[in-house]
Amino acid sequence: MTRFAEGRKLLKARFMELREQPSDYRLGVPQPPLEKPHPADALLVDLPDPRAAFPPAVDLFALLESRRSRREFSPDPLRLEQISALLWATQGVISVIRDGFATLRTVPSGGSRHPFETYVAASNVDGLAPGIYRYAALKHKLIPVSNPPDLATSVMDACMRQEFVFTAPAVFLWSAVPYRSEWRYGVAAHKTIAQDSGHLCQNMYIACEALGLSTVAIGSYDQKLADELLGLDGDEEFVVYVAPVGWRNH
Amino acid sequence: MTRFAEGRKLLKARFMELREQPSDYRLGVPQPPLEKPHPADALLVDLPDPRAAFPPAVDLFALLESRRSRREFSPDPLRLEQISALLWATQGVISVIRDGFATLRTVPSGGSRHPFETYVAASNVDGLAPGIYRYAALKHKLIPVSNPPDLATSVMDACMRQEFVFTAPAVFLWSAVPYRSEWRYGVAAHKTIAQDSGHLCQNMYIACEALGLSTVAIGSYDQKLADELLGLDGDEEFVVYVAPVGWRNH
Repeated sequence: MTRFAEGRKLLKARFMELREQPSDYRLGVPQPPLEKPHPADALLVDLPDPRAAFPPAVDLFALLESRRSRREFSPDPLRLEQISALLWATQGVISVIRDGFATLRTVPSGGSRHPFETYVAASNVDGLAPGIYRYAALKHKLIPVSNPPDLATSVMDACMRQEFVFTAPAVFLWSAVPYRSEWRYGVAAHKTIAQDSGHLCQNMYIACEALGLSTVAIGSYDQKLADELLGLDGDEEFVVYVAPVGWRNH
Repeated sequence: MTRFAEGRKLLKARFMELREQPSDYRLGVPQPPLEKPHPADALLVDLPDPRAAFPPAVDLFALLESRRSRREFSPDPLRLEQISALLWATQGVISVIRDGFATLRTVPSGGSRHPFETYVAASNVDGLAPGIYRYAALKHKLIPVSNPPDLATSVMDACMRQEFVFTAPAVFLWSAVPYRSEWRYGVAAHKTIAQDSGHLCQNMYIACEALGLSTVAIGSYDQKLADELLGLDGDEEFVVYVAPVGWRNH
Protein backbone atom coordinates (compact mmCIF):
# COMPACT_ATOMS: atom_id res chain seq x y z
CA MET A 1 0.00 0.00 0.00
CA THR A 2 2.86 2.36 -0.76
CA ARG A 3 0.41 4.65 -2.57
CA PHE A 4 -0.74 5.84 0.87
CA ALA A 5 2.69 6.00 2.54
CA GLU A 6 2.65 9.80 2.76
CA GLY A 7 -0.76 9.96 4.43
CA ARG A 8 0.01 7.15 6.84
CA LYS A 9 3.22 8.86 7.89
CA LEU A 10 1.21 11.82 9.10
CA LEU A 11 -0.84 9.57 11.38
CA LYS A 12 2.23 8.36 13.22
CA ALA A 13 3.82 9.84 16.32
CA ARG A 14 6.73 12.07 15.38
CA PHE A 15 7.70 13.36 18.80
CA MET A 16 11.00 11.47 18.66
CA GLU A 17 12.04 13.71 15.74
CA LEU A 18 11.81 16.76 17.97
CA ARG A 19 15.00 15.66 19.68
CA GLU A 20 16.89 16.27 16.43
CA GLN A 21 14.71 19.13 15.15
CA PRO A 22 13.83 21.26 18.18
CA SER A 23 10.63 23.26 17.88
CA ASP A 24 10.57 27.05 17.93
CA TYR A 25 9.36 26.77 21.52
CA ARG A 26 12.54 24.89 22.45
CA LEU A 27 14.61 27.42 20.54
CA GLY A 28 13.15 30.27 22.56
CA VAL A 29 11.10 31.87 19.78
CA PRO A 30 8.29 33.95 21.34
CA GLN A 31 4.91 32.27 21.20
CA PRO A 32 2.15 33.37 18.81
CA PRO A 33 -1.03 34.92 20.24
CA LEU A 34 -3.58 32.61 21.89
CA GLU A 35 -6.23 33.75 19.44
CA LYS A 36 -6.47 35.84 16.29
CA PRO A 37 -6.48 39.52 17.24
CA HIS A 38 -9.48 41.60 16.26
CA PRO A 39 -9.59 45.28 15.23
CA ALA A 40 -9.71 47.54 18.28
CA ASP A 41 -12.84 49.20 16.92
CA ALA A 42 -14.71 45.95 16.17
CA LEU A 43 -18.31 46.03 17.39
CA LEU A 44 -18.43 42.84 19.42
CA VAL A 45 -21.74 41.03 19.81
CA ASP A 46 -22.59 39.95 23.36
CA LEU A 47 -23.57 36.32 23.83
CA PRO A 48 -26.02 35.00 26.44
CA ASP A 49 -24.81 32.79 29.29
CA PRO A 50 -23.85 29.49 27.61
CA ARG A 51 -25.34 27.53 30.50
CA ALA A 52 -28.86 28.82 29.72
CA ALA A 53 -29.47 26.45 26.79
CA PHE A 54 -28.25 23.29 28.55
CA PRO A 55 -30.80 21.03 30.22
CA PRO A 56 -30.27 20.72 34.00
CA ALA A 57 -29.74 16.96 33.82
CA VAL A 58 -29.06 14.47 31.04
CA ASP A 59 -28.88 10.70 30.88
CA LEU A 60 -25.37 10.56 29.41
CA PHE A 61 -25.55 6.89 28.45
CA ALA A 62 -28.78 7.49 26.52
CA LEU A 63 -27.29 10.63 24.95
CA LEU A 64 -24.21 8.78 23.66
CA GLU A 65 -26.43 5.96 22.46
CA SER A 66 -28.80 8.22 20.52
CA ARG A 67 -26.17 10.53 19.00
CA ARG A 68 -26.30 10.47 15.22
CA SER A 69 -25.13 12.49 12.25
CA ARG A 70 -28.32 14.39 11.41
CA ARG A 71 -28.70 16.21 8.11
CA GLU A 72 -32.29 17.45 8.36
CA PHE A 73 -33.01 20.89 9.75
CA SER A 74 -36.35 22.53 10.37
CA PRO A 75 -36.77 26.07 8.96
CA ASP A 76 -37.12 27.52 12.48
CA PRO A 77 -34.55 30.09 13.55
CA LEU A 78 -31.95 29.14 16.13
CA ARG A 79 -31.75 31.13 19.35
CA LEU A 80 -28.63 33.08 20.20
CA GLU A 81 -28.36 31.20 23.51
CA GLN A 82 -27.99 27.97 21.51
CA ILE A 83 -25.19 29.46 19.43
CA SER A 84 -23.58 30.62 22.67
CA ALA A 85 -23.84 27.12 24.16
CA LEU A 86 -22.31 25.46 21.07
CA LEU A 87 -19.44 27.95 20.83
CA TRP A 88 -18.67 27.39 24.49
CA ALA A 89 -18.96 23.59 24.28
CA THR A 90 -16.55 23.42 21.34
CA GLN A 91 -13.99 26.13 22.13
CA GLY A 92 -15.04 27.88 25.35
CA VAL A 93 -12.20 29.16 27.52
CA ILE A 94 -12.27 27.97 31.13
CA SER A 95 -9.11 29.78 32.18
CA VAL A 96 -5.90 31.39 30.97
CA ILE A 97 -2.92 29.85 32.70
CA ARG A 98 0.75 30.68 33.30
CA ASP A 99 0.55 34.39 32.49
CA GLY A 100 -0.95 33.90 29.05
CA PHE A 101 1.04 30.83 28.05
CA ALA A 102 -2.05 28.74 27.38
CA THR A 103 -5.81 28.46 27.64
CA LEU A 104 -7.73 25.61 29.23
CA ARG A 105 -10.91 24.99 27.30
CA THR A 106 -13.90 22.68 27.23
CA VAL A 107 -11.87 20.42 24.91
CA PRO A 108 -8.28 19.25 25.24
CA SER A 109 -5.57 20.25 22.76
CA GLY A 110 -2.03 18.96 22.38
CA GLY A 111 0.21 21.14 24.54
CA SER A 112 -2.89 23.28 25.27
CA ARG A 113 -2.14 25.11 22.02
CA HIS A 114 -5.77 25.34 20.84
CA PRO A 115 -4.87 26.17 17.25
CA PHE A 116 -8.42 26.94 16.08
CA GLU A 117 -10.66 29.85 15.25
CA THR A 118 -14.42 29.34 15.06
CA TYR A 119 -16.59 31.01 12.44
CA VAL A 120 -20.36 30.95 12.35
CA ALA A 121 -22.22 31.54 9.09
CA ALA A 122 -25.58 32.63 10.49
CA SER A 123 -28.48 32.67 8.05
CA ASN A 124 -31.34 32.44 10.50
CA VAL A 125 -30.51 33.12 14.14
CA ASP A 126 -32.82 35.23 16.31
CA GLY A 127 -30.98 38.32 17.51
CA LEU A 128 -28.13 38.03 15.02
CA ALA A 129 -28.05 39.86 11.67
CA PRO A 130 -27.30 37.37 8.87
CA GLY A 131 -23.59 37.14 8.13
CA ILE A 132 -20.31 35.53 9.06
CA TYR A 133 -18.99 35.96 12.60
CA ARG A 134 -15.82 34.89 14.35
CA TYR A 135 -15.80 33.69 17.95
CA ALA A 136 -13.72 35.79 20.33
CA ALA A 137 -13.23 32.88 22.70
CA LEU A 138 -11.32 34.79 25.40
CA LYS A 139 -14.22 37.23 25.73
CA HIS A 140 -17.03 34.84 24.76
CA LYS A 141 -18.32 37.31 22.17
CA LEU A 142 -18.81 37.35 18.41
CA ILE A 143 -16.90 39.55 15.97
CA PRO A 144 -18.77 40.44 12.75
CA VAL A 145 -16.58 39.41 9.81
CA SER A 146 -18.60 39.89 6.62
CA ASN A 147 -22.04 39.62 5.12
CA PRO A 148 -21.70 37.97 1.71
CA PRO A 149 -24.73 38.02 -0.59
CA ASP A 150 -26.43 34.63 -0.88
CA LEU A 151 -24.72 33.42 2.28
CA ALA A 152 -26.48 30.04 2.53
CA THR A 153 -25.73 29.29 -1.13
CA SER A 154 -22.07 30.25 -0.73
CA VAL A 155 -21.68 27.98 2.29
CA MET A 156 -23.39 25.13 0.44
CA ASP A 157 -21.07 25.66 -2.54
CA ALA A 158 -18.04 25.55 -0.20
CA CYS A 159 -19.38 22.21 1.07
CA MET A 160 -19.34 20.69 -2.41
CA ARG A 161 -23.01 21.60 -2.92
CA GLN A 162 -24.39 19.24 -0.29
CA GLU A 163 -27.96 20.56 -0.25
CA PHE A 164 -28.68 20.00 3.43
CA VAL A 165 -26.03 22.62 4.22
CA PHE A 166 -28.20 25.24 2.51
CA THR A 167 -31.11 24.50 4.82
CA ALA A 168 -29.17 24.90 8.10
CA PRO A 169 -29.89 28.16 9.97
CA ALA A 170 -26.24 28.27 11.09
CA VAL A 171 -23.03 26.61 9.94
CA PHE A 172 -19.95 26.35 12.15
CA LEU A 173 -16.59 26.41 10.34
CA TRP A 174 -13.40 25.79 12.28
CA SER A 175 -10.09 27.01 10.90
CA ALA A 176 -6.63 26.02 12.02
CA VAL A 177 -3.86 28.53 12.64
CA PRO A 178 -1.22 25.81 12.39
CA TYR A 179 1.75 27.78 13.68
CA ARG A 180 0.21 27.87 17.15
CA SER A 181 0.85 24.13 17.40
CA GLU A 182 3.93 24.03 15.12
CA TRP A 183 5.60 26.53 17.44
CA ARG A 184 5.41 23.93 20.20
CA TYR A 185 5.58 20.63 18.34
CA GLY A 186 7.20 21.26 14.94
CA VAL A 187 6.60 18.39 12.52
CA ALA A 188 4.63 16.54 15.21
CA ALA A 189 1.99 19.29 15.25
CA HIS A 190 -0.16 18.34 12.29
CA LYS A 191 -1.49 15.04 13.54
CA THR A 192 -2.22 16.76 16.84
CA ILE A 193 -4.15 19.56 15.12
CA ALA A 194 -6.31 17.07 13.24
CA GLN A 195 -7.00 15.10 16.43
CA ASP A 196 -7.80 18.30 18.31
CA SER A 197 -10.36 19.21 15.63
CA GLY A 198 -11.97 15.84 16.33
CA HIS A 199 -12.18 16.66 20.05
CA LEU A 200 -14.13 19.84 19.43
CA CYS A 201 -16.35 18.25 16.82
CA GLN A 202 -17.33 15.48 19.21
CA ASN A 203 -18.37 18.10 21.75
CA MET A 204 -20.45 19.73 18.99
CA TYR A 205 -22.30 16.45 18.54
CA ILE A 206 -22.79 15.93 22.26
CA ALA A 207 -23.98 19.47 22.91
CA CYS A 208 -26.38 19.34 19.95
CA GLU A 209 -27.76 16.03 21.17
CA ALA A 210 -28.33 17.52 24.62
CA LEU A 211 -29.97 20.63 23.14
CA GLY A 212 -32.24 18.67 20.79
CA LEU A 213 -30.49 20.00 17.69
CA SER A 214 -29.20 18.33 14.51
CA THR A 215 -25.61 18.45 13.35
CA VAL A 216 -23.22 16.53 11.14
CA ALA A 217 -19.45 16.80 10.76
CA ILE A 218 -18.40 17.70 7.23
CA GLY A 219 -14.91 16.86 6.01
CA SER A 220 -15.81 16.86 2.32
CA TYR A 221 -15.65 20.57 1.61
CA ASP A 222 -13.88 22.54 -1.09
CA GLN A 223 -10.75 23.90 0.60
CA LYS A 224 -10.34 26.88 -1.72
CA LEU A 225 -13.99 27.99 -1.61
CA ALA A 226 -14.23 27.52 2.15
CA ASP A 227 -11.09 29.55 2.80
CA GLU A 228 -12.21 32.29 0.41
CA LEU A 229 -15.62 32.45 2.07
CA LEU A 230 -13.97 33.29 5.39
CA GLY A 231 -11.23 35.48 3.91
CA LEU A 232 -8.42 33.13 4.98
CA ASP A 233 -5.06 32.92 3.21
CA GLY A 234 -5.18 29.11 3.06
CA ASP A 235 -1.71 28.69 4.51
CA GLU A 236 -1.33 30.45 7.87
CA GLU A 237 -5.03 29.86 8.46
CA PHE A 238 -7.41 27.49 6.69
CA VAL A 239 -10.64 25.61 7.29
CA VAL A 240 -10.32 22.12 8.81
CA TYR A 241 -13.87 21.13 9.77
CA VAL A 242 -17.46 22.23 9.13
CA ALA A 243 -20.74 21.47 10.93
CA PRO A 244 -24.17 22.81 10.04
CA VAL A 245 -26.67 23.03 12.91
CA GLY A 246 -30.41 23.53 13.26
CA TRP A 247 -33.56 22.29 14.96
CA ARG A 248 -34.57 18.75 14.20
CA ASN A 249 -37.45 18.24 11.82
CA HIS A 250 -40.53 17.17 13.72
CA MET B 1 6.60 28.44 6.57
CA THR B 2 7.43 26.03 3.77
CA ARG B 3 9.16 23.78 6.33
CA PHE B 4 5.67 22.64 7.38
CA ALA B 5 4.09 22.41 3.91
CA GLU B 6 3.87 18.62 4.01
CA GLY B 7 2.12 18.52 7.36
CA ARG B 8 -0.28 21.33 6.52
CA LYS B 9 -1.29 19.49 3.37
CA LEU B 10 -2.56 16.62 5.57
CA LEU B 11 -4.92 19.04 7.29
CA LYS B 12 -6.60 20.19 4.09
CA ALA B 13 -9.66 18.71 2.39
CA ARG B 14 -8.65 16.45 -0.48
CA PHE B 15 -12.05 15.18 -1.53
CA MET B 16 -11.81 17.06 -4.86
CA GLU B 17 -8.87 14.79 -5.79
CA LEU B 18 -11.12 11.75 -5.59
CA ARG B 19 -12.74 12.83 -8.83
CA GLU B 20 -9.44 12.21 -10.64
CA GLN B 21 -8.23 9.35 -8.42
CA PRO B 22 -11.29 7.24 -7.60
CA SER B 23 -11.09 5.26 -4.38
CA ASP B 24 -11.17 1.47 -4.30
CA TYR B 25 -14.79 1.79 -3.19
CA ARG B 26 -15.63 3.66 -6.40
CA LEU B 27 -13.66 1.11 -8.42
CA GLY B 28 -15.76 -1.72 -6.99
CA VAL B 29 -13.04 -3.33 -4.87
CA PRO B 30 -14.68 -5.39 -2.07
CA GLN B 31 -14.63 -3.69 1.31
CA PRO B 32 -12.32 -4.78 4.13
CA PRO B 33 -13.88 -6.30 7.28
CA LEU B 34 -15.58 -3.96 9.77
CA GLU B 35 -13.21 -5.11 12.47
CA LYS B 36 -10.09 -7.21 12.82
CA PRO B 37 -11.07 -10.89 12.82
CA HIS B 38 -10.17 -12.96 15.85
CA PRO B 39 -9.19 -16.64 16.03
CA ALA B 40 -12.25 -18.88 16.07
CA ASP B 41 -11.01 -20.52 19.25
CA ALA B 42 -10.29 -17.26 21.12
CA LEU B 43 -11.61 -17.32 24.68
CA LEU B 44 -13.62 -14.11 24.73
CA VAL B 45 -14.09 -12.26 28.00
CA ASP B 46 -17.65 -11.17 28.75
CA LEU B 47 -18.13 -7.54 29.72
CA PRO B 48 -20.80 -6.18 32.08
CA ASP B 49 -23.59 -3.97 30.76
CA PRO B 50 -21.85 -0.67 29.85
CA ARG B 51 -24.79 1.29 31.25
CA ALA B 52 -24.11 0.03 34.77
CA ALA B 53 -21.21 2.38 35.47
CA PHE B 54 -22.90 5.55 34.16
CA PRO B 55 -24.62 7.84 36.66
CA PRO B 56 -28.38 8.17 36.00
CA ALA B 57 -28.16 11.92 35.47
CA VAL B 58 -25.35 14.38 34.86
CA ASP B 59 -25.16 18.16 34.65
CA LEU B 60 -23.59 18.27 31.19
CA PHE B 61 -22.60 21.93 31.38
CA ALA B 62 -20.79 21.33 34.66
CA LEU B 63 -19.19 18.18 33.25
CA LEU B 64 -17.79 20.00 30.19
CA GLU B 65 -16.64 22.83 32.42
CA SER B 66 -14.80 20.57 34.86
CA ARG B 67 -13.21 18.23 32.29
CA ARG B 68 -9.43 18.29 32.52
CA SER B 69 -6.44 16.23 31.46
CA ARG B 70 -5.71 14.35 34.70
CA ARG B 71 -2.43 12.51 35.18
CA GLU B 72 -2.79 11.28 38.77
CA PHE B 73 -4.21 7.86 39.45
CA SER B 74 -4.94 6.25 42.80
CA PRO B 75 -3.57 2.71 43.28
CA ASP B 76 -7.12 1.28 43.54
CA PRO B 77 -8.13 -1.31 40.94
CA LEU B 78 -10.62 -0.35 38.27
CA ARG B 79 -13.84 -2.33 37.99
CA LEU B 80 -14.63 -4.29 34.86
CA GLU B 81 -17.90 -2.39 34.47
CA GLN B 82 -15.88 0.82 34.15
CA ILE B 83 -13.72 -0.70 31.42
CA SER B 84 -16.92 -1.85 29.72
CA ALA B 85 -18.40 1.66 29.92
CA LEU B 86 -15.26 3.29 28.48
CA LEU B 87 -14.94 0.78 25.62
CA TRP B 88 -18.57 1.36 24.75
CA ALA B 89 -18.36 5.16 25.02
CA THR B 90 -15.35 5.30 22.70
CA GLN B 91 -16.09 2.58 20.13
CA GLY B 92 -19.33 0.87 21.09
CA VAL B 93 -21.43 -0.43 18.18
CA ILE B 94 -25.04 0.78 18.16
CA SER B 95 -26.01 -1.05 14.97
CA VAL B 96 -24.70 -2.67 11.81
CA ILE B 97 -26.34 -1.14 8.76
CA ARG B 98 -26.84 -1.99 5.09
CA ASP B 99 -26.05 -5.70 5.34
CA GLY B 100 -22.66 -5.23 6.93
CA PHE B 101 -21.59 -2.17 4.95
CA ALA B 102 -20.99 -0.07 8.06
CA THR B 103 -21.36 0.24 11.81
CA LEU B 104 -22.99 3.11 13.65
CA ARG B 105 -21.15 3.74 16.89
CA THR B 106 -21.14 6.06 19.86
CA VAL B 107 -18.76 8.28 17.89
CA PRO B 108 -18.98 9.45 14.28
CA SER B 109 -16.43 8.41 11.65
CA GLY B 110 -15.94 9.69 8.11
CA GLY B 111 -18.04 7.51 5.82
CA SER B 112 -18.88 5.38 8.91
CA ARG B 113 -15.62 3.53 8.29
CA HIS B 114 -14.54 3.32 11.95
CA PRO B 115 -10.93 2.45 11.15
CA PHE B 116 -9.87 1.69 14.74
CA GLU B 117 -9.13 -1.21 17.02
CA THR B 118 -9.05 -0.69 20.77
CA TYR B 119 -6.50 -2.35 23.03
CA VAL B 120 -6.51 -2.27 26.81
CA ALA B 121 -3.33 -2.85 28.76
CA ALA B 122 -4.82 -3.92 32.08
CA SER B 123 -2.46 -3.97 35.04
CA ASN B 124 -5.00 -3.70 37.84
CA VAL B 125 -8.61 -4.36 36.90
CA ASP B 126 -10.88 -6.45 39.17
CA GLY B 127 -12.02 -9.53 37.31
CA LEU B 128 -9.45 -9.29 34.54
CA ALA B 129 -6.13 -11.11 34.55
CA PRO B 130 -3.27 -8.67 33.86
CA GLY B 131 -2.44 -8.45 30.18
CA ILE B 132 -3.27 -6.86 26.86
CA TYR B 133 -6.76 -7.28 25.46
CA ARG B 134 -8.42 -6.23 22.21
CA TYR B 135 -11.99 -4.99 22.09
CA ALA B 136 -14.34 -7.09 19.95
CA ALA B 137 -16.68 -4.16 19.37
CA LEU B 138 -19.33 -6.08 17.41
CA LYS B 139 -19.77 -8.49 20.31
CA HIS B 140 -18.84 -6.10 23.14
CA LYS B 141 -16.33 -8.57 24.52
CA LEU B 142 -12.58 -8.63 25.12
CA ILE B 143 -10.10 -10.85 23.29
CA PRO B 144 -6.94 -11.77 25.26
CA VAL B 145 -3.92 -10.75 23.15
CA SER B 146 -0.81 -11.25 25.25
CA ASN B 147 0.61 -10.97 28.72
CA PRO B 148 4.04 -9.33 28.47
CA PRO B 149 6.24 -9.39 31.59
CA ASP B 150 6.51 -5.99 33.27
CA LEU B 151 3.40 -4.77 31.46
CA ALA B 152 3.12 -1.38 33.20
CA THR B 153 6.80 -0.65 32.54
CA SER B 154 6.50 -1.64 28.89
CA VAL B 155 3.52 0.64 28.40
CA MET B 156 5.34 3.49 30.14
CA ASP B 157 8.37 2.94 27.91
CA ALA B 158 6.12 3.05 24.82
CA CYS B 159 4.84 6.40 26.11
CA MET B 160 8.32 7.90 26.15
CA ARG B 161 8.71 7.00 29.82
CA GLN B 162 6.08 9.40 31.13
CA GLU B 163 5.92 8.10 34.70
CA PHE B 164 2.23 8.68 35.31
CA VAL B 165 1.50 6.05 32.66
CA PHE B 166 3.13 3.44 34.89
CA THR B 167 0.74 4.22 37.73
CA ALA B 168 -2.47 3.81 35.70
CA PRO B 169 -4.40 0.57 36.38
CA ALA B 170 -5.41 0.45 32.70
CA VAL B 171 -4.16 2.10 29.52
CA PHE B 172 -6.28 2.33 26.38
CA LEU B 173 -4.37 2.24 23.07
CA TRP B 174 -6.21 2.84 19.81
CA SER B 175 -4.73 1.61 16.56
CA ALA B 176 -5.76 2.59 13.06
CA VAL B 177 -6.31 0.05 10.29
CA PRO B 178 -5.96 2.76 7.64
CA TYR B 179 -7.17 0.78 4.65
CA ARG B 180 -10.70 0.71 6.08
CA SER B 181 -10.90 4.45 5.42
CA GLU B 182 -8.54 4.53 2.41
CA TRP B 183 -10.83 2.02 0.69
CA ARG B 184 -13.56 4.64 0.79
CA TYR B 185 -11.67 7.92 0.65
CA GLY B 186 -8.24 7.27 -0.87
CA VAL B 187 -5.83 10.12 -0.21
CA ALA B 188 -8.55 12.00 1.68
CA ALA B 189 -8.69 9.27 4.32
CA HIS B 190 -5.79 10.22 6.54
CA LYS B 191 -7.08 13.53 7.81
CA THR B 192 -10.39 11.83 8.48
CA ILE B 193 -8.72 9.03 10.45
CA ALA B 194 -6.91 11.55 12.66
CA GLN B 195 -10.11 13.52 13.24
CA ASP B 196 -12.03 10.34 14.00
CA SER B 197 -9.43 9.44 16.64
CA GLY B 198 -10.16 12.82 18.20
CA HIS B 199 -13.88 12.03 18.33
CA LEU B 200 -13.35 8.86 20.31
CA CYS B 201 -10.79 10.44 22.60
CA GLN B 202 -13.19 13.23 23.50
CA ASN B 203 -15.78 10.62 24.48
CA MET B 204 -13.10 8.99 26.64
CA TYR B 205 -12.66 12.29 28.47
CA ILE B 206 -16.39 12.83 28.86
CA ALA B 207 -17.11 9.31 30.05
CA CYS B 208 -14.21 9.43 32.54
CA GLU B 209 -15.45 12.76 33.86
CA ALA B 210 -18.93 11.30 34.34
CA LEU B 211 -17.52 8.18 36.05
CA GLY B 212 -15.22 10.14 38.36
CA LEU B 213 -12.08 8.79 36.71
CA SER B 214 -8.85 10.44 35.51
CA THR B 215 -7.60 10.28 31.95
CA VAL B 216 -5.30 12.17 29.61
CA ALA B 217 -4.81 11.88 25.85
CA ILE B 218 -1.24 10.95 24.91
CA GLY B 219 0.07 11.77 21.45
CA SER B 220 3.73 11.73 22.45
CA TYR B 221 4.40 8.01 22.34
CA ASP B 222 7.17 6.00 20.66
CA GLN B 223 5.56 4.64 17.50
CA LYS B 224 7.87 1.65 17.18
CA LEU B 225 7.63 0.55 20.82
CA ALA B 226 3.88 1.06 20.95
CA ASP B 227 3.30 -0.99 17.80
CA GLU B 228 5.64 -3.73 19.01
CA LEU B 229 3.88 -3.87 22.37
CA LEU B 230 0.60 -4.69 20.63
CA GLY B 231 2.15 -6.91 17.95
CA LEU B 232 1.18 -4.57 15.10
CA ASP B 233 3.04 -4.39 11.79
CA GLY B 234 3.22 -0.59 11.88
CA ASP B 235 1.87 -0.17 8.36
CA GLU B 236 -1.48 -1.90 7.91
CA GLU B 237 -2.18 -1.28 11.59
CA PHE B 238 -0.45 1.08 13.99
CA VAL B 239 -1.15 3.00 17.20
CA VAL B 240 -2.63 6.49 16.82
CA TYR B 241 -3.70 7.49 20.34
CA VAL B 242 -3.17 6.41 23.93
CA ALA B 243 -5.04 7.20 27.16
CA PRO B 244 -4.27 5.87 30.65
CA VAL B 245 -7.20 5.71 33.05
CA GLY B 246 -7.67 5.25 36.77
CA TRP B 247 -9.44 6.50 39.84
CA ARG B 248 -8.68 10.05 40.89
CA ASN B 249 -6.41 10.55 43.80
CA HIS B 250 -8.39 11.65 46.82
